[in-house]
Amino acid sequence: MNSIESQLQKLGLALPEAKPPVGNYLGSKRIGELLFASGRVSDCVGAVGSDITIEKAKEAARDTVLIVLSIIKQDIKDLDLIVGVIKMTGFVRSSENFTQQPKVIDGASDLLIELFKESGHHARTATGVTQLPFGASVQLDIIFQMKPIV
Amino acid sequence: MNSIESQLQKLGLALPEAKPPVGNYLGSKRIGELLFASGRVSDCVGAVGSDITIEKAKEAARDTVLIVLSIIKQDIKDLDLIVGVIKMTGFVRSSENFTQQPKVIDGASDLLIELFKESGHHARTATGVTQLPFGASVQLDIIFQMKPIV
Amino acid sequence: MNSIESQLQKLGLALPEAKPPVGNYLGSKRIGELLFASGRVSDCVGAVGSDITIEKAKEAARDTVLIVLSIIKQDIKDLDLIVGVIKMTGFVRSSENFTQQPKVIDGASDLLIELFKESGHHARTATGVTQLPFGASVQLDIIFQMKPIV
Repeated sequence: MNSIESQLQKLGLALPEAKPPVGNYLGSKRIGELLFASGRVSDCVGAVGSDITIEKAKEAARDTVLIVLSIIKQDIKDLDLIVGVIKMTGFVRSSENFTQQPKVIDGASDLLIELFKESGHHARTATGVTQLPFGASVQLDIIFQMKPIV
Repeated sequence: MNSIESQLQKLGLALPEAKPPVGNYLGSKRIGELLFASGRVSDCVGAVGSDITIEKAKEAARDTVLIVLSIIKQDIKDLDLIVGVIKMTGFVRSSENFTQQPKVIDGASDLLIELFKESGHHARTATGVTQLPFGASVQLDIIFQMKPIV
Repeated sequence: MNSIESQLQKLGLALPEAKPPVGNYLGSKRIGELLFASGRVSDCVGAVGSDITIEKAKEAARDTVLIVLSIIKQDIKDLDLIVGVIKMTGFVRSSENFTQQPKVIDGASDLLIELFKESGHHARTATGVTQLPFGASVQLDIIFQMKPIV
């Protein structure tokens, strides 16, 4: 077991089964040291602030990181090829007056930092949308940094 | 005629006339092998799921790829300098209950893959917004990979 | 004083005090020549087209550039390490029928070009959302180009 997955185990978390993309696209694509992971949505559905609470949405954001990592593992086989996290864009399906998108996306940022330590710290944009694929509450779009190919 | 444009011709498609940016920005900007194309909207207007159907929106997504390519051609002159597609973000103007954004953006992904073949496969995020510039139905933001400058 | 800050002074503008991120993320993260600045929102709140005018929103977009630069200065110390601007994504909190997002984001583009001159020209996507963190009117997500590290 690699260090990222043993770290997950220590946190009592596990990668879900990798679900295939829901359209004609890749799970991720690499160029140089950048790995662009396709946006993935939470299993949790509903608008934050009306249908679901901020606490539940934060957990959904954390769990969506696991969904993203499960797809990437399928693509690159070994998650330890990831050096760190560069940038995350988090889309939060927000009720009309919900303005705490950053708190929701912290659920994802916290886990990325627990897993990748110092190099897990990242730039981020958290924004509010009214609708997401399948009515999901959260969608994450992450750019990772990969080990250079030698 | 280069191979991308002859491919378009085979598909019965043609690049529209390149429309200038609607603000103070470039059509695209290159850094290293990455070419960031500015977001472009479909000529097709209306919210998907209420004003227009998913089939029409999918066509609009496909046609927006042509709009993006027409702008890039103006910038780089020869579309064969593009090696492939790295990442696409698709914004779909969605009615309140419309949650099939990925199906709409497949219209764009399908064409990119037809044009750029294996290297046209890309990472992708499809998300839902309530409003887009000029009331358009679809907006595409694409990062292409360019041939290295030798 | 470096040239970017003296340029700001000539324009009668000044960097605000750098506000810390409102969640568990960095102000910016660099990889190679790319500097990803975290998304920052305007102090100006309200939906454009209903709560606030397009002119006010355009100013808010301009002022948000200053907020972004103040954070980056804290991270990299010297803004003259920035070579230029690659890509900006502008999220505009839009009232139901507001479709002039590009005009709003021009407020940010205009300033970036005034500050970074020729290399300040950038690719851009301006899109519409219904809600933003803290109810802000504008959110900017910018990728800058940095001087190579020698």
